[in-house]
Amino acid sequence: MKRSEVVAETAITLLAERGMRGLTHRAVDEAAGLPPGSTSNLARTRAALLELTLARLAELEAAVFTVGEGDLVETLSKILMTQLKDRRRTLARYELALEATRRPELRAIYDRTGAQFRNPAVALMAAAGSPDPVRHGRQLVAFSEGIMFDAVAGAGVEPTLADLRRALHDLLNGMLQTP
Amino acid sequence: MKRSEVVAETAITLLAERGMRGLTHRAVDEAAGLPPGSTSNLARTRAALLELTLARLAELEAAVFTVGEGDLVETLSKILMTQLKDRRRTLARYELALEATRRPELRAIYDRTGAQFRNPAVALMAAAGSPDPVRHGRQLVAFSEGIMFDAVAGAGVEPTLADLRRALHDLLNGMLQTP
Repeated sequence: MKRSEVVAETAITLLAERGMRGLTHRAVDEAAGLPPGSTSNLARTRAALLELTLARLAELEAAVFTVGEGDLVETLSKILMTQLKDRRRTLARYELALEATRRPELRAIYDRTGAQFRNPAVALMAAAGSPDPVRHGRQLVAFSEGIMFDAVAGAGVEPTLADLRRALHDLLNGMLQTP
Repeated sequence: MKRSEVVAETAITLLAERGMRGLTHRAVDEAAGLPPGSTSNLARTRAALLELTLARLAELEAAVFTVGEGDLVETLSKILMTQLKDRRRTLARYELALEATRRPELRAIYDRTGAQFRNPAVALMAAAGSPDPVRHGRQLVAFSEGIMFDAVAGAGVEPTLADLRRALHDLLNGMLQTP
């Protein structure tokens, strides 16, 4: 791994384990076993460190959102399951989403990243016959986010693949049968 | 307001505006215009301050979850709209939800608080004729959380009451028509 990837991966782990307060340049150096000052050399400011971390998360998540030919419920359940299995990454993303409400530069990156799954969600709903794919694509993203948030930080109960299938089945059923 | 309420309300505002890093005993004293040490007198440790804040949030949210006689979609849309209008409170709750993944005592309070809307959600779904009210109640909570998270920290676009009605209509439709 390149050093910037090591720094970003360590920052993701720190965000998940210790939250925004636990992420400092020094903590990254220490946790990654890098010489003091390494993280500062790569990302001088706190903003730069957060942006590097979010960019890495976006790369990792882009790899998950590949939609094949199969059944829609099956495809989406598996994407959610993959996201949930990497609890660390999902928690770090929520930390950054909240921080982005306070940092416009981070918000801009978060929104660009979001487009990489928001646009496919609209396309999926259109392909499935939705009468209003833009709205339904947005609902699909929001509801998926809810399932993930509830699992990692809300109820704290991990859904099984069968739970995810049933939830997505109900959801798509409701959107596609609505007159 | 009692001093403990002033402290908790100020902590909620600080969490929303500055995140977990911005919440300190000293920052609460300053923002609330209280003499130095006031917050420490009420809640000696950081854990105690977080618990006081979450307990206040739970009180505020309990007032929102009163379900009357009317139409289910209408009732739920209005509850979500009320939550969304107090963006400050919703952001603070998400900060505390993430922090609760790292603090078991906070987790216990968060879960007790969650029961105050999770149990009614199951009852609502049962009353609406759900064939599996426990699962559907949980889905209703998770999906509602997704709509709120997406609005305040995800897409950053505030849904209108009409958007909320349509989303909840689709959702309930899917859950209640599933064979």
